[in-house]
Amino acid sequence: MAEIVTPRTLSGFMELSPKDQLKFNSIKKVIEEVYQLHGFYALDTPVLELSEVLMAKTGGEEIGKQIYRFTKGDTDLTMRFDLTVPLAKYVAKNYGELTFPFKRYQIGKVYRGERAQRGRFREFYQSDIDIIGDGELDIYNDAIIPSIIYQVFTRLGLDDFVIRINNRKVLNGFIEGMGINADLTEVLRIVDKIEKVPREVIVEELGELGLDPEGVNKLVEFIQIKGAGEEVFEKAAGFGINTESFNEGISELKAVVEGIESFNVPADCFCIDFSIARGLDYYTGTVYETMLKKHPEIGSVCSGGRYDNLAAYYTKKTLPGVGMSIGLTRLFYILNEKKYISTNISAPSDILILPFDRKDYGKASEINAYFISQGIRSQVYFENKKVKAKMKYADSLGIPFVILLGEDEIEKNVVSIKNLATGEQQQISKEEAVLLVQDALIAQRSEKIINISE
Amino acid sequence: MAEIVTPRTLSGFMELSPKDQLKFNSIKKVIEEVYQLHGFYALDTPVLELSEVLMAKTGGEEIGKQIYRFTKGDTDLTMRFDLTVPLAKYVAKNYGELTFPFKRYQIGKVYRGERAQRGRFREFYQSDIDIIGDGELDIYNDAIIPSIIYQVFTRLGLDDFVIRINNRKVLNGFIEGMGINADLTEVLRIVDKIEKVPREVIVEELGELGLDPEGVNKLVEFIQIKGAGEEVFEKAAGFGINTESFNEGISELKAVVEGIESFNVPADCFCIDFSIARGLDYYTGTVYETMLKKHPEIGSVCSGGRYDNLAAYYTKKTLPGVGMSIGLTRLFYILNEKKYISTNISAPSDILILPFDRKDYGKASEINAYFISQGIRSQVYFENKKVKAKMKYADSLGIPFVILLGEDEIEKNVVSIKNLATGEQQQISKEEAVLLVQDALIAQRSEKIINISE
Repeated sequence: MAEIVTPRTLSGFMELSPKDQLKFNSIKKVIEEVYQLHGFYALDTPVLELSEVLMAKTGGEEIGKQIYRFTKGDTDLTMRFDLTVPLAKYVAKNYGELTFPFKRYQIGKVYRGERAQRGRFREFYQSDIDIIGDGELDIYNDAIIPSIIYQVFTRLGLDDFVIRINNRKVLNGFIEGMGINADLTEVLRIVDKIEKVPREVIVEELGELGLDPEGVNKLVEFIQIKGAGEEVFEKAAGFGINTESFNEGISELKAVVEGIESFNVPADCFCIDFSIARGLDYYTGTVYETMLKKHPEIGSVCSGGRYDNLAAYYTKKTLPGVGMSIGLTRLFYILNEKKYISTNISAPSDILILPFDRKDYGKASEINAYFISQGIRSQVYFENKKVKAKMKYADSLGIPFVILLGEDEIEKNVVSIKNLATGEQQQISKEEAVLLVQDALIAQRSEKIINISE
Repeated sequence: MAEIVTPRTLSGFMELSPKDQLKFNSIKKVIEEVYQLHGFYALDTPVLELSEVLMAKTGGEEIGKQIYRFTKGDTDLTMRFDLTVPLAKYVAKNYGELTFPFKRYQIGKVYRGERAQRGRFREFYQSDIDIIGDGELDIYNDAIIPSIIYQVFTRLGLDDFVIRINNRKVLNGFIEGMGINADLTEVLRIVDKIEKVPREVIVEELGELGLDPEGVNKLVEFIQIKGAGEEVFEKAAGFGINTESFNEGISELKAVVEGIESFNVPADCFCIDFSIARGLDYYTGTVYETMLKKHPEIGSVCSGGRYDNLAAYYTKKTLPGVGMSIGLTRLFYILNEKKYISTNISAPSDILILPFDRKDYGKASEINAYFISQGIRSQVYFENKKVKAKMKYADSLGIPFVILLGEDEIEKNVVSIKNLATGEQQQISKEEAVLLVQDALIAQRSEKIINISE
């Protein structure tokens, strides 16, 4: 016998308690269901890929991210660090067999060896949704993606969010139109901080780039515009910018807003915000980020945008796309820490059957099989313990209904069912017990999974 | 711009087409639903663990399996090669917070660097279900596990299977009772081959171990016994063995058979088979394997058994358990190769809406949102292409219903819905369209996912 090794889990690797895992899975399930309702294919690419393939963009160089890379035999391998590069590989590789626009979602674990700290993870779920076109992709798709995210969050009960939308062409065109001659990347990097630092800091930093004070003031004024469609477009027009890029960006934004409205997304769940820049070299048009109104400190919980070309480093085909990604592990961690997730969804069964005696195990199994055939999650406690130990099992697991089964019940062909929340107990037929539990389940399903307002 | 890298996937890493992925996910979903109906918690342990932890059993030595092991910084890491060791770690680590019997399932990818060949995978899903006791675990649990597997396979449409059951104590006790003085492991290794080689080979190999011919003949006769409970137990009794181990094994087998019957598992879906030995040093009592009757060449598609102590290398607590595992990736690969999986489940949507003109996109979105609110998977084709290209999209994706939406329909507040299988087209209200599609979905849901008999 080997020596005892202390069982432990790597730091930065989320490993949930059984109850928390049920909560996590409930959230994941809602996300998946919404993606599926909208006709998105599920993909499931490998966790391991050739390093050369995953780092094609940089010619095999690691891309700033701390990654898990190693060799096995003479193969240079990397654990995926996002779901976008595997998507690009997949679409380029299977181009001939795919139908475009290709709509896919993927919810999977990715790996980054970042410094471990509270709320930061090295293994975490991303939940991505993208639409890829072949050569072209209608701007209307830029409205579908946030509308789906709206449905995900609403169904989760997260009604306290706003999807902020901008278009990179608007910012680029504005800067161009103002005749600002500074490094665009540098300007956008500063602009992107508008929510985090005082206006004066922005003005000062932009001034340091050599921009004239008037230009700086106009730019800062511009990026502070936010709100619903019409008013924002009027304000933007007031700046008198008339570059091709600016006009194209504004017209795309108008199409996106119109599209989002046609998906019945309420006006308070999205807005235009000219300060959003996001990922400076990746996105080329529409950009999104999603904030929780009561928790701006969390930052964006779902971001994305439009890119001109998904897979330039794998194929000569032009594959434009638009997508968003939910950082599921981090979002769950925060919501769970703040106790915003319903505990009603953390019981593994709806019914627990407690046979009084070993000789009643067979009858208990039969009744259990009946409940399960009716779609009710049910289990039997088969250990030969005292009644107190049996009840403790139900309590610990939070199972709402307990069925006590003894000679009396078996003889009368009934069950004694006890509602552990109310303490109410009654002898009814197993068919009546199904109706009772189904009613409770219907009530439970109408409850929100996430409740920030409480 | 970096050079173009050929997009490719590692050999032995399954990466499915969008349609095959939908089939795979349908199977996975049924397995999960059945596990959940029976009150099993879902676990989701990390893919990466400390090598010291994963290889605790052997004191850090690799265990014959080709594994993915590497160092990052000064941490020695291993990608999990099964789901049992992580379960042992989890239960030992969280012992104080868990309620026993602890019932969990885990469906996840595991990694083994075996030689890549057709149908052999290096990254593959295992689908495990286990019940862990604290100090003791009633034998009735050994009946629950195969009963759940029976429900999984039946719901999948795989009616052509038999779960074979044995008990290691029976074999051990038989050999002991016969006074056979050979290496038990060696005897069992030979016994385990009874289905694959002729009886004479078994007799010869056992003879070579120094067993007397009479003993060999009795043993070979014994391990060929298989069938339903009563007859098997009578035959076994006829051998006049009376060791403690043998009697205990037989009495446990009797309890398991009785238990399985009380779960309403039909008699032709399970049998006792005294030749089943499985994993020579791990299981200590009941053992199972599951064969497809028409495809014995596939071998066991779901195996498992009872073990005395799950986590001896992590804790001094005695944690007996019982479980089974489905090799999901391999099973899927075989069923899909043989075209046994329904193609009706490979469409990503139930309805595709085709607006005639760009100006109808808004109306199309509204109708789409309505269908989705009714739980119907629906999408709109938003590309500005010719009708032929639009219809080709529906065809390629295999979407059963197409809605043609133009000025005429919008004015009359109806939709033109076409059943692509029958070619039938009608103008009805969107509410009627929902009913039409729901009927088709109900019919589809009653179809089997897997159909071997065809």
